[in-house]
Amino acid sequence: MNKRAFFDPTFKLGILGGGQLGKMLCQVTSRWALHTAVLDTSRDFPAGQVCSEFVEGDFTDYNDVVEFGKQMDVVTIEIERVNSAALNTLKQQGTIVHPDPGALDIIKDKGLQKQFYDHQGLPTTPHQLFAGKNEIENAVGAGSLKLPFVVKARKDGYDGRGVHIVRTEQDLAECFDAACLVEPLLELEREVSVIVARNQRGEIKSFPPVGMEFHPTANLVEYLYCPAGIGSSIAQEAIQIAQATAESLDMCGLLAVEMFVTTDGQLLINEVAPRPHNSGHHTIEACSVSQFEQHLRAILDLPLADVTLRSPAVMINILGSPGHEGPARYNGLEQCIGIVGVSLHLYGKSTTKPFRKMGHATIVAPRLEQAIETAKFVRSTISVTA
Amino acid sequence: MNKRAFFDPTFKLGILGGGQLGKMLCQVTSRWALHTAVLDTSRDFPAGQVCSEFVEGDFTDYNDVVEFGKQMDVVTIEIERVNSAALNTLKQQGTIVHPDPGALDIIKDKGLQKQFYDHQGLPTTPHQLFAGKNEIENAVGAGSLKLPFVVKARKDGYDGRGVHIVRTEQDLAECFDAACLVEPLLELEREVSVIVARNQRGEIKSFPPVGMEFHPTANLVEYLYCPAGIGSSIAQEAIQIAQATAESLDMCGLLAVEMFVTTDGQLLINEVAPRPHNSGHHTIEACSVSQFEQHLRAILDLPLADVTLRSPAVMINILGSPGHEGPARYNGLEQCIGIVGVSLHLYGKSTTKPFRKMGHATIVAPRLEQAIETAKFVRSTISVTA
Repeated sequence: MNKRAFFDPTFKLGILGGGQLGKMLCQVTSRWALHTAVLDTSRDFPAGQVCSEFVEGDFTDYNDVVEFGKQMDVVTIEIERVNSAALNTLKQQGTIVHPDPGALDIIKDKGLQKQFYDHQGLPTTPHQLFAGKNEIENAVGAGSLKLPFVVKARKDGYDGRGVHIVRTEQDLAECFDAACLVEPLLELEREVSVIVARNQRGEIKSFPPVGMEFHPTANLVEYLYCPAGIGSSIAQEAIQIAQATAESLDMCGLLAVEMFVTTDGQLLINEVAPRPHNSGHHTIEACSVSQFEQHLRAILDLPLADVTLRSPAVMINILGSPGHEGPARYNGLEQCIGIVGVSLHLYGKSTTKPFRKMGHATIVAPRLEQAIETAKFVRSTISVTA
Repeated sequence: MNKRAFFDPTFKLGILGGGQLGKMLCQVTSRWALHTAVLDTSRDFPAGQVCSEFVEGDFTDYNDVVEFGKQMDVVTIEIERVNSAALNTLKQQGTIVHPDPGALDIIKDKGLQKQFYDHQGLPTTPHQLFAGKNEIENAVGAGSLKLPFVVKARKDGYDGRGVHIVRTEQDLAECFDAACLVEPLLELEREVSVIVARNQRGEIKSFPPVGMEFHPTANLVEYLYCPAGIGSSIAQEAIQIAQATAESLDMCGLLAVEMFVTTDGQLLINEVAPRPHNSGHHTIEACSVSQFEQHLRAILDLPLADVTLRSPAVMINILGSPGHEGPARYNGLEQCIGIVGVSLHLYGKSTTKPFRKMGHATIVAPRLEQAIETAKFVRSTISVTA
């Protein structure tokens, strides 16, 4: 690719996936007047009204992805579940594809991910791989695996799906049956995330680490806060681990690296995502550059932007209320939109479901404690019902 | 209007005009998932790819505007040249219209504007009204009007069009012939702009004043800077005048008030615009809220947001290069996009013309002097050629 070609009117960027991450990528490309096509099954999805061109198709289908991608100069993703064989074909045919399909194949399979970290000497959680539930039961029966533990599906788990905590035999009986990995339940101080950007020329920059609080039952990030409150030496170490991971995977684009901080101060990689990530939404308002713009800079081989945190920030997901499914109704928005420092993002999903990500709010304040106070009010005030 | 109705999926906002101001309004409504329809003659215009719904029609045509507007809950504008009789009809039929067609009629006619300021006791430039060129020539011949002076068309002047400086008889001979107002050439210290937001419940907030530098021949804002460097007492006075003007016009929405600061420290209203304005583009990156979001808050009768300047900023228009007309080519963008603090906005106009507004760049920096230095580099580096 001619490095300057992307400001050429004939340049086309393709995004696989039309969800909120695709939408927020399109909000940046719109600012740059960069022609952006989105592939997904329905134009009603969040990115459908913001992209330059919407192509109806299935990003898990080989032919749909190849057909779509061959008309693009650069192809990227907003979700991992895409057809990576098709991305490989596109790459061989000369389309620029970021992330690389090889890295994507490792990341899509949590088992391969863990083996990769072991092989690269990157710190990660202890783990064992199993072919299915039966094998786990046998291991427990034989005493080689002890309760409690966490079972994670190797593939297609996201937003808490495909994760099952086993404390009792009853829990085990209720576990899904699929190829999986099993990890011990660690004593955690907290969970943090570092979003790294790396471009083709190898320039690398990391946003400041964020702390993540999970929703107790939905296993979704409920709010995150930045700074992460882990002290500067652990923060530095987290950034080093994240950057080493991005370099080991030879990433081009963003890599979100979720890590556990154990009570004895160890940093262990939990999992990674090769795309914009929920833990980086606050960057839109709180940093010098948003994660979305930084991803585009990276994949277009433009210089990466400064990532300074301009203000402490808290991000909360606006989730569909439990017990509600149907056309979405938003409650409490007006009370929150008047508060200094509160920014609302609604994704435009017409239907709500329990715990569905319907939007998010970012709260900035001169001190993190204030932002947390406001975030608590916002969380208790906004709801999405049917 | 039910105040909460605008987060209802059935709510519709209509914008007359599909230029860059409409585009940047849509970028905010997209973040709020607020259904936004745009009326203009071609979907290829900047807002065409960002709005939820594009309606092809002529915003100067009575029927087109009424047809479009009656499907909307709230109608606003991004350009003054709209059919205000149609807006009046819509208002009578119950559509919420901001700005009010009455205020718009005053603002569209620079003669009525001046008479309004006089009537309200608002400070403005000395002025005389003339029916056409012949009348001006007679006044000059009779000695009741003395060279030099500025002739401004009462209607349809914008971006420097409809403004003619007369220093010599030859200049007068070359002047356009239309209903106009004539002002003396004042000794100016500088020109400033204050953007005021006012909502229906009368809440009012002003962005900090900005200083404007005009392009010497194109008579377009070439760059603006904030803070305006006029000292806090003049800044306060400028804000008071701007707010008094918005209140006199009973504005709902934004009012951009351009003022002259004379060498003897007087503030005189030059002209106003009842919409987002070129002098407020920097607010996207530099203020707690952008002018576009603030306009939407005002017209939807939501609480106005905090307008704090988070960082000194300079905004430069990216104009079509003189001597170039045709499909646009952008030069020098990559060199500029790598500089800390530089944000690019391209409007997506496919064709460039001399001095056409093709985009803008905002430069933020801890000190204004640094931002000005960077802005000079950006201005000398970026060009748009055919």
